[in-house]
Amino acid sequence: MEHLILHQDPISANCYKISLTAALLSIPLEHRSYSIMKGETRTPEFLENVSAYGRIPVLQIGGSTFLPESNAACFYLAEKSSSSSNSTSSPTLIPDDPLLRAEMFSWMFFEQNQHEVNIATLRFWLHVLGEKNLDGTRRVQVDGKVKAGKQVLDYMNDHLAKSEHGWFVGENITLADICLFAYTHIAHHSGFNLDEWPAVQKWCERVKGVRNFVPFTFYNGLGGS
Amino acid sequence: MEHLILHQDPISANCYKISLTAALLSIPLEHRSYSIMKGETRTPEFLENVSAYGRIPVLQIGGSTFLPESNAACFYLAEKSSSSSNSTSSPTLIPDDPLLRAEMFSWMFFEQNQHEVNIATLRFWLHVLGEKNLDGTRRVQVDGKVKAGKQVLDYMNDHLAKSEHGWFVGENITLADICLFAYTHIAHHSGFNLDEWPAVQKWCERVKGVRNFVPFTFYNGLGGS
Repeated sequence: MEHLILHQDPISANCYKISLTAALLSIPLEHRSYSIMKGETRTPEFLENVSAYGRIPVLQIGGSTFLPESNAACFYLAEKSSSSSNSTSSPTLIPDDPLLRAEMFSWMFFEQNQHEVNIATLRFWLHVLGEKNLDGTRRVQVDGKVKAGKQVLDYMNDHLAKSEHGWFVGENITLADICLFAYTHIAHHSGFNLDEWPAVQKWCERVKGVRNFVPFTFYNGLGGS
Repeated sequence: MEHLILHQDPISANCYKISLTAALLSIPLEHRSYSIMKGETRTPEFLENVSAYGRIPVLQIGGSTFLPESNAACFYLAEKSSSSSNSTSSPTLIPDDPLLRAEMFSWMFFEQNQHEVNIATLRFWLHVLGEKNLDGTRRVQVDGKVKAGKQVLDYMNDHLAKSEHGWFVGENITLADICLFAYTHIAHHSGFNLDEWPAVQKWCERVKGVRNFVPFTFYNGLGGS
């Protein structure tokens, strides 16, 4: 596989998804860190050389290919690994069955459209910026996002409680689990107590027990718990 | 292929994506319509029989499988069609090359996380509900969503202006084009004038010229233009 560089901010669990996918698949990944809070993803150099949209994560593949969007980067790693691997010992993270594959993507799109915009956004507002620092436009959205976040967790909990194998799709861990795990296992940063969603909590422990799992830690003084 | 039923509201361009994908691939699709505005996706029957999350579209595959998320449904149709087709005359809509495939998904995740939450949401607020009917929480978000929507269109326009073949990814139309086209070609419903983004406008015309294209029309008195 080509040399891979993850352009990231360690504060972001969207970036962590990619690191976790790479770890589970034993794919080496170089990390280059930028601080969103310091505006380091909006500098002329970043916009010119990494992403004109000014967001991270971006997975750099070889010298000149830059792939934005966390879930697409996870997909790239898992698909490349599965096609290039001579070993059957690594998990593939993408089901072979077309319907299960579509269901995996369904959860991944749900994660971006329903989960991330509520639960990850609340984490950024309440945990990173701090509630007292929110402007009025953000402040009035908090209650709605808490309500929507609870609906997301209810839906995940109901699905997992009925899941035969304890994963979102099929018999094994897939990218759906990894992408949903990222902001779910730190949902307390967003103001949610996972004790209220026991099937989600149990599933989080299941993900943490997977071979080669790496925890989400960040290095900017906000703490890693 | 199994019998397919699209549970939809004709007002939704997320639903249209799936109809357009099916049309381009000549896949028969039965439509069952519900009115979001009348709460028909929140009835006990809908929650029990179609989706516990209470949202459309949902693609029903055979008798008992229900696949939510528009982009995942498009993926399912395109992948099934490509694996079951004996003909090479239909477009496949999914590139063979792994990197192009990942780039297609990158645009599809971008569509859900950046485009849909701004441009489609503005359409629902301004065109469907009407600006005078917005509550305060929504009203204060309009300016931010207009700004974000412009950034999305700028980014798409720059990408298309540099695209060698006029599509988002590779040499042919892919699901990235279909998913982005849905709410882009009716961006005037969201308050955007596509004259400001000529490469986007040209690309919309290109999509409309694809064989078997079907226009987005809806049947609820809001008009289809």
